[in-house]
Amino acid sequence: MMSASSSSSSSNPMSREDATLLPSIDDKYGGVRTEMTHPMDPSLFSSLLRASLSNWTLQGKKGVWIKLPKHLIGLAESAVKEGFWFHHAEKDYLMLAYWIPKDVHTLPANASHRVRIGAYVINHNKEVLVVQEKTGQFQGQGIWKFPTGVVNEGEDIHDGSVREVKEETGVDTEFVQILAFRQTHKTFFEKSDLFFVCMLKPLSLEINAQESEIEAAQWMPWEEYTKQPFVQKHELLRYMTDICSAKTDGGYEGSTPIRVSAPDQQGAPDQQGNLYYNTRDLHSRH
Amino acid sequence: MMSASSSSSSSNPMSREDATLLPSIDDKYGGVRTEMTHPMDPSLFSSLLRASLSNWTLQGKKGVWIKLPKHLIGLAESAVKEGFWFHHAEKDYLMLAYWIPKDVHTLPANASHRVRIGAYVINHNKEVLVVQEKTGQFQGQGIWKFPTGVVNEGEDIHDGSVREVKEETGVDTEFVQILAFRQTHKTFFEKSDLFFVCMLKPLSLEINAQESEIEAAQWMPWEEYTKQPFVQKHELLRYMTDICSAKTDGGYEGSTPIRVSAPDQQGAPDQQGNLYYNTRDLHSRH
Repeated sequence: MMSASSSSSSSNPMSREDATLLPSIDDKYGGVRTEMTHPMDPSLFSSLLRASLSNWTLQGKKGVWIKLPKHLIGLAESAVKEGFWFHHAEKDYLMLAYWIPKDVHTLPANASHRVRIGAYVINHNKEVLVVQEKTGQFQGQGIWKFPTGVVNEGEDIHDGSVREVKEETGVDTEFVQILAFRQTHKTFFEKSDLFFVCMLKPLSLEINAQESEIEAAQWMPWEEYTKQPFVQKHELLRYMTDICSAKTDGGYEGSTPIRVSAPDQQGAPDQQGNLYYNTRDLHSRH
Repeated sequence: MMSASSSSSSSNPMSREDATLLPSIDDKYGGVRTEMTHPMDPSLFSSLLRASLSNWTLQGKKGVWIKLPKHLIGLAESAVKEGFWFHHAEKDYLMLAYWIPKDVHTLPANASHRVRIGAYVINHNKEVLVVQEKTGQFQGQGIWKFPTGVVNEGEDIHDGSVREVKEETGVDTEFVQILAFRQTHKTFFEKSDLFFVCMLKPLSLEINAQESEIEAAQWMPWEEYTKQPFVQKHELLRYMTDICSAKTDGGYEGSTPIRVSAPDQQGAPDQQGNLYYNTRDLHSRH
């Protein structure tokens, strides 16, 4: 058996020609990836996996990834018995990982943070856009708060803030800047949370509260918002109102995004991303 | 069978008294959590799970969590057949989730971002702390770059930056502020990346480069660092050098952390966290 027989050409990325090895593709980092798509007897999977691992070892491969869709989770036990661990999981699949060399693995860490936004939207009458939520801690307490939400997978923070405001209140907005952000830990299981306070400029005023999540939404005089006992009570909210006031009154500068390309950490072509920084302070120098 | 028999009292959180139901504890959000710890025949697990789901449904429970340690992954197939999906996985366990009500679930999203730091450490001679890495894209190319690293699970960003600099170079530092941050997507699989550029003040000068990851480390004159073709070539690095220069020359303000408590989004007691904001602009108003 040729040691290269399990590696695929780019025209045939998941070759099954050699039935004694698992189909795999080489990754860019000296490792291999296998994605199981069809049911297989677990004992057959075990023997193919063992043969494949021997083969990958001979080839000097490092990391091994096995992606198991939900309906093939019955194969996971075989991989665990060969020393695989869980790298991450999404709704429909589990990703298992293994490191062939004897040294410490250099596989990327699993995602550790959720990203959320809170939206500060104030109109020309110094009224702030606030909502009462149907679920969660604050339901039924008459507390008016900024629209908040989770940034979707793959979504830019600023896009997420505009989308959440639109979904919850029907108000169109333009992103201005990130005023502050907060990191907390163990917000759910072992995961952490990054919460970005975004300032947005309203482009429309009419409110259409989202039925599923929002009890009520309104434009509320800023002073009235800040006087709520709920806002006064919590340290974070007092800071947030101070920062928002400082922004509206002028003089406070947060972080504004610009689109920049950057070298990929894994050696891929330059990546596009958003760099958020204090544009006023930087550009005032030029 | 009493419908309450699967719920535990706080003194006996994982009661096994009733062998026809899975042990579970109520969570704070109207759901239940089951953590499997001992091997069980998959067909027994299936029948216990079905009985438990009926029971939880009668009780009006919403979310159901099943945590399976790696060595019990053989039970996952039974849960998938009952309609469970994967919520997340860590090295040693898979968390499965299920939503009993007919409406859209309100379970928290899986973590979507990794958090990394880059450290700008400059001494009184205007020399910047730079490293050459042993692995990755830049190995063997003679490129000097800022120390970078992944923030650990549960670690504050500023603590992560101080730790990474110490690990990679042996230099002790004090965190100053976050100068800028960048969000990129699909940096590994579907996950996103938040990269925080941190300024740190050196507290020691002697360098002890980390053997496993770092080829070399040195204090390099700032001008020499910025003149590297690698730095000149990449848009992100040009911005970063401009921002770092603006910080050192004075006038540029980033985000400084303060410890604040905040209302927990899930209704738990107030959480401690770090709020990062432009302290200069806020405090200059007072």
